[in-house]
Amino acid sequence: MSSEPPPAPSADAAEELAAGLSAATLSKKQQKKDARKAEKAEKAAQRQQQQQPADAEDPFAANYGDVPVEEIQSKAISGRSWSQIGDLDDSVAGRSVLIRGAAQAIRPVSKKMAFVVLRQSMSTVQCVLVASADAGVSTQMVRFATAFSKESIVDVEGVVSLPKEPLKATTQQVEIQVRKIYCINRAIPTLPINLEDAARSEADFEKAELAGEKLVRVGQDTRLNYRAIDLRTPSNQAVFRIQCQVENKFREFLLSKDFVGIHTPKLISGSSEGGAAVFKLLYNGQPACLAQSPQLYKQMAICGGFERVFEVGPVFRAENSNTHRHLCEFVGLDAEMEIKEHYFEVCDIIDGLFVSIFKHLTENCKKELETINRQYPFEPLKYLDKTLKLPYEEGVQMLKEAGTEIEPMGDLNTEAEKKLGRLVREKYNTDFFILYRYPLAVRPFYTMPCYDNPAYTNSFDVFIRGEEIISGAQRIHTPELLAKRATECGIDVSTISAYIESFSYGAPPHGGFGVGLERVVMLFCALNNIRKTSMFPRDPQRLVP
Amino acid sequence: MSSEPPPAPSADAAEELAAGLSAATLSKKQQKKDARKAEKAEKAAQRQQQQQPADAEDPFAANYGDVPVEEIQSKAISGRSWSQIGDLDDSVAGRSVLIRGAAQAIRPVSKKMAFVVLRQSMSTVQCVLVASADAGVSTQMVRFATAFSKESIVDVEGVVSLPKEPLKATTQQVEIQVRKIYCINRAIPTLPINLEDAARSEADFEKAELAGEKLVRVGQDTRLNYRAIDLRTPSNQAVFRIQCQVENKFREFLLSKDFVGIHTPKLISGSSEGGAAVFKLLYNGQPACLAQSPQLYKQMAICGGFERVFEVGPVFRAENSNTHRHLCEFVGLDAEMEIKEHYFEVCDIIDGLFVSIFKHLTENCKKELETINRQYPFEPLKYLDKTLKLPYEEGVQMLKEAGTEIEPMGDLNTEAEKKLGRLVREKYNTDFFILYRYPLAVRPFYTMPCYDNPAYTNSFDVFIRGEEIISGAQRIHTPELLAKRATECGIDVSTISAYIESFSYGAPPHGGFGVGLERVVMLFCALNNIRKTSMFPRDPQRLVP
Repeated sequence: MSSEPPPAPSADAAEELAAGLSAATLSKKQQKKDARKAEKAEKAAQRQQQQQPADAEDPFAANYGDVPVEEIQSKAISGRSWSQIGDLDDSVAGRSVLIRGAAQAIRPVSKKMAFVVLRQSMSTVQCVLVASADAGVSTQMVRFATAFSKESIVDVEGVVSLPKEPLKATTQQVEIQVRKIYCINRAIPTLPINLEDAARSEADFEKAELAGEKLVRVGQDTRLNYRAIDLRTPSNQAVFRIQCQVENKFREFLLSKDFVGIHTPKLISGSSEGGAAVFKLLYNGQPACLAQSPQLYKQMAICGGFERVFEVGPVFRAENSNTHRHLCEFVGLDAEMEIKEHYFEVCDIIDGLFVSIFKHLTENCKKELETINRQYPFEPLKYLDKTLKLPYEEGVQMLKEAGTEIEPMGDLNTEAEKKLGRLVREKYNTDFFILYRYPLAVRPFYTMPCYDNPAYTNSFDVFIRGEEIISGAQRIHTPELLAKRATECGIDVSTISAYIESFSYGAPPHGGFGVGLERVVMLFCALNNIRKTSMFPRDPQRLVP
Repeated sequence: MSSEPPPAPSADAAEELAAGLSAATLSKKQQKKDARKAEKAEKAAQRQQQQQPADAEDPFAANYGDVPVEEIQSKAISGRSWSQIGDLDDSVAGRSVLIRGAAQAIRPVSKKMAFVVLRQSMSTVQCVLVASADAGVSTQMVRFATAFSKESIVDVEGVVSLPKEPLKATTQQVEIQVRKIYCINRAIPTLPINLEDAARSEADFEKAELAGEKLVRVGQDTRLNYRAIDLRTPSNQAVFRIQCQVENKFREFLLSKDFVGIHTPKLISGSSEGGAAVFKLLYNGQPACLAQSPQLYKQMAICGGFERVFEVGPVFRAENSNTHRHLCEFVGLDAEMEIKEHYFEVCDIIDGLFVSIFKHLTENCKKELETINRQYPFEPLKYLDKTLKLPYEEGVQMLKEAGTEIEPMGDLNTEAEKKLGRLVREKYNTDFFILYRYPLAVRPFYTMPCYDNPAYTNSFDVFIRGEEIISGAQRIHTPELLAKRATECGIDVSTISAYIESFSYGAPPHGGFGVGLERVVMLFCALNNIRKTSMFPRDPQRLVP
């Protein structure tokens, strides 16, 4: 362990305590802790003084400056404690804090005063610089701070205070009275995206237009080209936190139902679903491709005795689909389970799973949902405590009655799905439902036909706001029926013999489903483009960054 | 909802209750529930009778048989409740149960008696058939059961009983007195792997050899070729359950430390770590490759304001390494985080993370660990509550003193790592430690050099039982230093300009690490081959199944 001085001067807690700014509100334990910290800080400051003689023209020169990279090469551990902007509220008023954040806005007021708004993820706080010998703040220091380029990484030490008037521009309702300010890493002066532009809502644009003002719109492509900046908008911070929560809840729920999380290979020898839209490559000289779904592998895991499995992993589709809802690479949430009697056992899992995900988001991600709502307003998702299950034929009938003729043994196109979503919403008051018993002709060969009518299957799709997010079914578990169905679907049985054979080694009845993570988030939040819910999306035109 | 009769006759709970076998031990609530179930079951049985007239020669013909696939095409939902073998203990003795499992062993005793051992994941139970008119079991039924091929999927209804002598061959200490038995899906008579052979330990082989017996050994390749069978061995069931727990704990710990789970693309335009060993393909006509690590993307997420991120996903390495510890595709557990002052902040996360994983496995996966131990005996991992951090130079010195000369500015080879593991174990009593401050020459260009000696870096590897499982470091966060280091490493800066530029938009100091999930499980359990901890491993020779 190195005993070198800290990389940046440490919080001058001693001074704050001496000024009695906040001692009254501190517990004894905290006072002791602060005293120890103050002692440490003082020693560090002394060492600092020896190293770095004060600017002759500015007695407070040590209180600000650019920190050279050498100081951030893990030179030392000061033991100082860092605050999170999101944690700052009136309960810490008067306390000295140390914060690192991005300089989102810099507002010079006069030679003696300036504001710097610091940001961490979804939270911002206003830091106030007022030149004063008491505070150790010089006019040079104010000038230094106003020269920051936006988005530079900045360390601020200061005292938390309550502003006289409520703050508009920041998410925290406290300010920081700056005592020290250091720049850790400067951003270039002109960024390819202005964050304020990127964070504007449609309402902001309308308001500006009414006022005769012209605001800059940041296009989707520009956003994606400079994703490392675009991701800093509050709504993007919220979207990917929600995505993480959807996945967590997916895992948590399934684990509670005795599912085992597995990982299956993405490099495979054949194509996983029979041909089209597959990425091909050479694997040590052999032809190989990227898995379009973990389908066959999760079935093998069931045959391998795992009873219930799930997988979260990338799924690859080389489709040339330039739509708002297709990606060439997306995150698949897949599950497969033994069925005792009926594929509704799978539907029951989906019902419990998604209702618990929706509830969790609504209850525990309020800040994230509000943040998205500010930029992209949306109506909350309507769902029932017990998910509606609608037979496919009934769906077709509903569409027919509403004037949309559907080939009854064909699939629904996107438009028909959208319309059915609206009809179901009107009739059943839900944006989330299961449509089951699809025609045989539109499902993969391994789908179990219905016992009473082989023109239909034990299969289903699940919809949110009229868009499909889940596909699932009972699978064929006997080699004879599987070979028969493959042949009927024009598949050369010899190419999938290993798959078919694996059901002759003792295979339980089973079924499962696959979900697209990005679609769930997009549709829950009613976003208009799946590229908004993929951190680094891949579509036919985009392979970077 | 269909109102058809159930696919297989339902548990005759009425009969069991009438016989008073267990009513005394049941709660009132349970009795009511059972009575309702009995009523339901009786009705179902009546319907069954109408459909399927009893075999003229066997009045109990309805109590056994092969269930045709039509009956398992989600024909109906009987509402019967199914038991898990692992839950059966003496507390349910006398109760009627319904179970689906694989017929692991079939042991005919006489024309009137037979045993069928049923298995579910890691648990087995012995089912006893004794011909008796009272029980509704005929000699034909006994014959039917003894004709099962091993691994066939079988439904058993019966009464839980306590055997007079403790059972050897099964994991449950109760038996089931069979009343009804149906075959759901037959396995072929001769399987490519005999499960009993596949589950034997080295000790079994030695014992057999002493007894002059020759047992069949199932080779690693045969296992992998028929993985859907091989996965059914108790040790494999345990290994992949432990793998799931390692991942869960990884996620849970990092989430508790405010990390956000993300997903980054596996299809990328360049090669992620500068060239060699990369799988190449065409992406809509453009040259593309598979990510060898999420390195650059998780750094972009940090620059994108996420402060702390992790990812669990596949990592692809086209290396021609035919060793016990390399795979061409494995599951990477990656994390990246802002560093305030020192990369030891990252080491602290690793310390807390792995100690919590090890503790969790030891405390909550006892059955799994014992199961693996039976087939592959191993010493429990030694680890310290506070993980040892050893400077690289000290490691080199320890090796030197033990007679192994190492190029001090080079890397450790596998042999030296193994030896260092032994030396550290002797000196510090731990199998788990962090080796830090690696020479610059052996780390990637984006690794932050040490502030006091640029021939070393702010980097580390982590070892379990003398094998590397984690690599990590502080990363360079300024574009100038990054470009300089890339050039020094012979990388054409123009090929990574987007990466370098992204640090000019405001980038915080940061660091992170990557772990191989399969290696963690392999080394925690001291297994001798990484193919044992990958469900469907990919090595230079293997792309199937």
